[in-house]
Amino acid sequence: MSHNIVVVGGGVIGLAVARRLAPEHDVTLVDPAPARGASWVAGGMLAPVTEAWPGEEELLDIGGASLASWPGFAADLGIDLFSEGTVVAGFDTADAAQLDIVADYLARQGRPVDRLTGRELRRVEPTIGPGVRCGLKVVGDLAVDNRELLRLLTSRAYEAGVEFLREPVRAVRPGEVELAGSTLRCDIAVIAAGAWSGGLHPALASAVRPVKGEILRLRARDGTLPPPRHTVRALVESRPVYLVPRADGELVLGATQYEAGFDTEVTAGGVRDLLVRAERVVPAIAEYELTETAAGLRAGSRDNLPLVGWLEPGVLVAAGHHRNGLLLAPITADAIRAMAAGAEPQAEIKAADPARLER
Amino acid sequence: MSHNIVVVGGGVIGLAVARRLAPEHDVTLVDPAPARGASWVAGGMLAPVTEAWPGEEELLDIGGASLASWPGFAADLGIDLFSEGTVVAGFDTADAAQLDIVADYLARQGRPVDRLTGRELRRVEPTIGPGVRCGLKVVGDLAVDNRELLRLLTSRAYEAGVEFLREPVRAVRPGEVELAGSTLRCDIAVIAAGAWSGGLHPALASAVRPVKGEILRLRARDGTLPPPRHTVRALVESRPVYLVPRADGELVLGATQYEAGFDTEVTAGGVRDLLVRAERVVPAIAEYELTETAAGLRAGSRDNLPLVGWLEPGVLVAAGHHRNGLLLAPITADAIRAMAAGAEPQAEIKAADPARLER
Repeated sequence: MSHNIVVVGGGVIGLAVARRLAPEHDVTLVDPAPARGASWVAGGMLAPVTEAWPGEEELLDIGGASLASWPGFAADLGIDLFSEGTVVAGFDTADAAQLDIVADYLARQGRPVDRLTGRELRRVEPTIGPGVRCGLKVVGDLAVDNRELLRLLTSRAYEAGVEFLREPVRAVRPGEVELAGSTLRCDIAVIAAGAWSGGLHPALASAVRPVKGEILRLRARDGTLPPPRHTVRALVESRPVYLVPRADGELVLGATQYEAGFDTEVTAGGVRDLLVRAERVVPAIAEYELTETAAGLRAGSRDNLPLVGWLEPGVLVAAGHHRNGLLLAPITADAIRAMAAGAEPQAEIKAADPARLER
Repeated sequence: MSHNIVVVGGGVIGLAVARRLAPEHDVTLVDPAPARGASWVAGGMLAPVTEAWPGEEELLDIGGASLASWPGFAADLGIDLFSEGTVVAGFDTADAAQLDIVADYLARQGRPVDRLTGRELRRVEPTIGPGVRCGLKVVGDLAVDNRELLRLLTSRAYEAGVEFLREPVRAVRPGEVELAGSTLRCDIAVIAAGAWSGGLHPALASAVRPVKGEILRLRARDGTLPPPRHTVRALVESRPVYLVPRADGELVLGATQYEAGFDTEVTAGGVRDLLVRAERVVPAIAEYELTETAAGLRAGSRDNLPLVGWLEPGVLVAAGHHRNGLLLAPITADAIRAMAAGAEPQAEIKAADPARLER
C-alpha cells in the first residue's frame, strides 16, 4: 500500500531512507540544508570492526550486516569504495594494551586481526612515523567519499521522485509534521534529523544528544610524500585520531569529540589536537596544505546504538547513529522501508528498536 | 610639475603611494587583485621597537620616523590606532637572554623598556600563561586593523582620482609598463609589487625575494576568557609568535617564516606551529574559534631594509618592506612623492636608497 511519507532530515540517513521509500510511496524530505550536517563533515569510514569495543556486540552485528550491504548499495549508486583496509597504530604501553583488548575481542567474535610491531606496521604502511610501537592490520573495513555519496544520494532521491522542502521542522506528531508557519499532513513521518531529533518528539528528548566532532582536510603538495594507502587509525598516548585518504590526494583527519551542546564552531584547541596527534602518526602531513576545517554534530544515543523503529503509530525514527551514520545507512533505509510497509525489519537492526527507551 | 605616473602593485605600499601622488599627478595603479597580498595577511603591528635588533639601527630609525607619522596618517584616513602597547614574553633561559639583548640595545638607543618577571608580566597582561618566565613591557608601539586600512586606502585612492587597472604586469622600463597584451606609457613608473618586484626589473632580480608567512585568525567565544589587551609577542623556546588583538574580539596569530619561493598554501605544520606556540603564551585561546588561515608573501631584501628610491631615470622602487610594510607606508609614500617631484626624501629613508645594491 502506498503512503504519504514525510522524512525529516536530509543527512545521509534521511536521504538514503527517502530514496529507498520513493519508488513505492509519495515522499517529501524536509531539511533547511540537505546533504550537509554531520554527514558532510564525516571521515567516510565504513568500519564496524575497528570501531568495535567489548560489550557492544549488537552494534558490531548491525555494522557487520550493513557493511555486507555496502558493495551493492555503492554499485547501485555508482560510487567507488576504498577497500585497502585499515591499519591501527599505537604509541605507548597503554595504547598497546587497548589494541590487545580490541584484537582479543575481535578474535572471540570470529573476526581475527593481525597484530604487528611498529616495524611490521611501517612495512605495510610506510607513511607511519618512527614513534609508533605497535599496530593492527584490519581487512574488510571500507571507506567512501562522504561528500560524493551525499551528492549522489541527493540526485538519486530527486530522480526517484522525492520532493525536497527546504524548511526547518518544529515538531513531529502522528499524522503531521509542524513547520515554522504551516503543517504537513502525512500517513507516516520519519524522524531522521540526527542530533536535532531530540527536539522533535517527546520520546527522543533525552535519548539523542549532540556530540561535536571537528575534522580537517589536508592535501598532498608538490614534493611532499604521498598520503597513506590505508585508512590509518591511531591511539596517540590514549588519544584517538584517524586519517582517511581520498582518491584525489586529499586526506581527512578526524575527529575530536566534545559534549558541548549545539556548538559547531571549530576551536583552535581542536585543530591543534588533531594536527599534533596526526603528525605523530604520519609525519609527512606537516608539509601538506590545510584546505578545510569543519565541525559537525553527531547524534549520540545513551547506549551507542542507533534508534530505528516505531516511536508510536505513524511516527518512525531513524536517528542516533553517532559515528556510524554512513556505515548504517543501507541497513537503516532497508529497515524503514520494511516497517513502513508493515513488515518486520532485518534481524540485526531489532536491537535498535526505540522501544528499549521505555525500559 | 604634474606627471603621468603608473604605480605597479596595490598592497599597502602601492595604495599609500598612489593616494599620496594623486592630488598632483595623473596616477594609474595596476594590480590584478589590489588590497590583498601580504598586506591583507599581516598582523597589523606598527612596531619598530619590538622588531629592533642590534646592527639594524637604520631600520629602527626609518621605523621610528614612520611611526611618528602614523597618528596623522591614521587621523587623516579616519582609522583607529591600537595604542595599548606590546608585551614580550619568554620561556627559557635562551629566551631571557634574547630579551636582555633587545632591552640592552634599546636602552643604548635611548628607547628604554621595562624588564619584567613572569609574575609581573601576568599582572600587566593577565592572559599570559603560567609557563612564561620573563618579559618586557614596551610602550609606543602601535597596531592597526590592516584590512580596514586597506579598505580605507583603496577608497581614498579612488576618491583622489587614482585609476585602477586590474591586470598583471610583465616588466617595467623607463617610460613604459608592459602588461600581458599592451603597454602603458608613463613619465614615471613606481614598482611597489612587494615580493613580485624582483621579476619586474633587472636591478631587483636578486634584491627582493618572497618570504612566506602564515597567519591565523581566532575569535573569542561565549564563555571564553577575553583576548589580551596588549599586543603580545613571545619567544617560545627560541621560536617567535605574536598575537594582535582587534577591537571586535578577533585575535590575529602570526607568523611563520619560510623561504620557499612563491608558495601561498597554508601548511598543516605551519598552523600547528602557530597554535602550539600561541597556546603556551595565552592558554585561553584553545577555546577560541579558528575563523581563518592564510598565507602571504613578504618582500624580503638582502639587508632587511626596504628599497625606496630611483632605480634609473623614470623608474622608482618602493618594495622590500618585509615585515614592516604597514609601519613604513607613510614614510615611503612621502618619500616617493618627494622624489617624483624632483626633491630629496626625508633623511631617515635615505638608507633605503636602492643605489646600495650596486655597492
